[in-house]
Amino acid sequence: MTGVLYGVGLGPGAPDLMTLRAARLIEGAGVVAYPTLAGAASFARAIAADLIPADAQEIIMDVPMSVERAPAQAAYDKGAAEIAAALDAGHDVVCLCEGDPFFYGSFMYLFARLSGTYRVEIVPGVTSVTACAARARMPLAARNERLTVLPGPLPEDELRARIEGAESVVIMKVGRHLAKIKGVIDALGLTEGAVYVERATLPEEVVLPLADAPEKAPYFSMILLTKGADPWL
Amino acid sequence: MTGVLYGVGLGPGAPDLMTLRAARLIEGAGVVAYPTLAGAASFARAIAADLIPADAQEIIMDVPMSVERAPAQAAYDKGAAEIAAALDAGHDVVCLCEGDPFFYGSFMYLFARLSGTYRVEIVPGVTSVTACAARARMPLAARNERLTVLPGPLPEDELRARIEGAESVVIMKVGRHLAKIKGVIDALGLTEGAVYVERATLPEEVVLPLADAPEKAPYFSMILLTKGADPWL
Repeated sequence: MTGVLYGVGLGPGAPDLMTLRAARLIEGAGVVAYPTLAGAASFARAIAADLIPADAQEIIMDVPMSVERAPAQAAYDKGAAEIAAALDAGHDVVCLCEGDPFFYGSFMYLFARLSGTYRVEIVPGVTSVTACAARARMPLAARNERLTVLPGPLPEDELRARIEGAESVVIMKVGRHLAKIKGVIDALGLTEGAVYVERATLPEEVVLPLADAPEKAPYFSMILLTKGADPWL
Repeated sequence: MTGVLYGVGLGPGAPDLMTLRAARLIEGAGVVAYPTLAGAASFARAIAADLIPADAQEIIMDVPMSVERAPAQAAYDKGAAEIAAALDAGHDVVCLCEGDPFFYGSFMYLFARLSGTYRVEIVPGVTSVTACAARARMPLAARNERLTVLPGPLPEDELRARIEGAESVVIMKVGRHLAKIKGVIDALGLTEGAVYVERATLPEEVVLPLADAPEKAPYFSMILLTKGADPWL
């Protein structure tokens, strides 16, 4: 019988913020799969490390760092073929995904390649968005408030237009775009109240007012612009 | 010693989509707290039911159905006072929250009342947004895409303006606003590809193309307008 591919969200980083379903699937996995970036250690694997059976097969998709699409496409093609072979051999495959598989994750590249042919189950996870809000102690949205999620790599003009028209805003993937984003938020007069969070829920977590953010931000960093605790009720 | 208030996200509904941390806190709880609406059964309590210790004290905040603020404010005031009394007596209090405590949840009303005086810890949870995307098999956002979350009760004009300028859109709390929202999406020519989801991850879940959505939608329903699986890589 053909196996099932599970796209399993692992949450923001603290291992106990994965779901009971994710933990059960990983503990029982015969085959796990995950991407790595240019040979670096996999964050997803690190979150799940204590639960992966010692004898599980590991399918590693090493995605090269490149502005060209073809090398990354080839890496996902190769990974999808390896996963397909395991599924054809009757093994379930647990694909490890930081956060949530369908929220800015690479799992959707495997989903696009394999969901037409194989049974694929998605296990949603806690996203970095609500994890950062929890750690920053800033409620994200209440009642009829709108929430906008923006990736930091967006061009400056678009960031400005989107932040200006929004209520609560979350800016993801800040990384090397920090200076640009700070400039936009400063120009809009919104720096006071903005919060910078990196590596939320991990031991090395940083939560700071945006004005005090470090010069260099890692990829896993975020800026929150919300109204904070709301005394409406 | 004064107790700690935990605002614990329970995820979208399936009990095994709560986090390991949430499960551990609930299993060890001496006092749990949760709101109910006009005496109705608590969805949050139902999600956690199998884990709540039989001898746990339960603080129930019954919030009346009313367009006036004062009666609901009074209910949260009373609940906050009961929680404060338990904390003062040295008990930790686990407040049960559907989804995530800081994402359209009532926990922020308790946070506003108690976080200045007591230690409050937020445990993020899987939101209905990523749960619905998982069940609808629709990736929410990738790469540099923007995601907009809109509450269904927003006025028609504002919904139209916000949907028109957006990429991926999630409309929460559809409920009795379904006809209005369908009208807006129809007028924008976006009905094809839009998906309606109610009670995601529960046994009574419904996932349908928006065109086939029922006439009556429950409060816990959502509409997804996303680009779907993305073949970019």
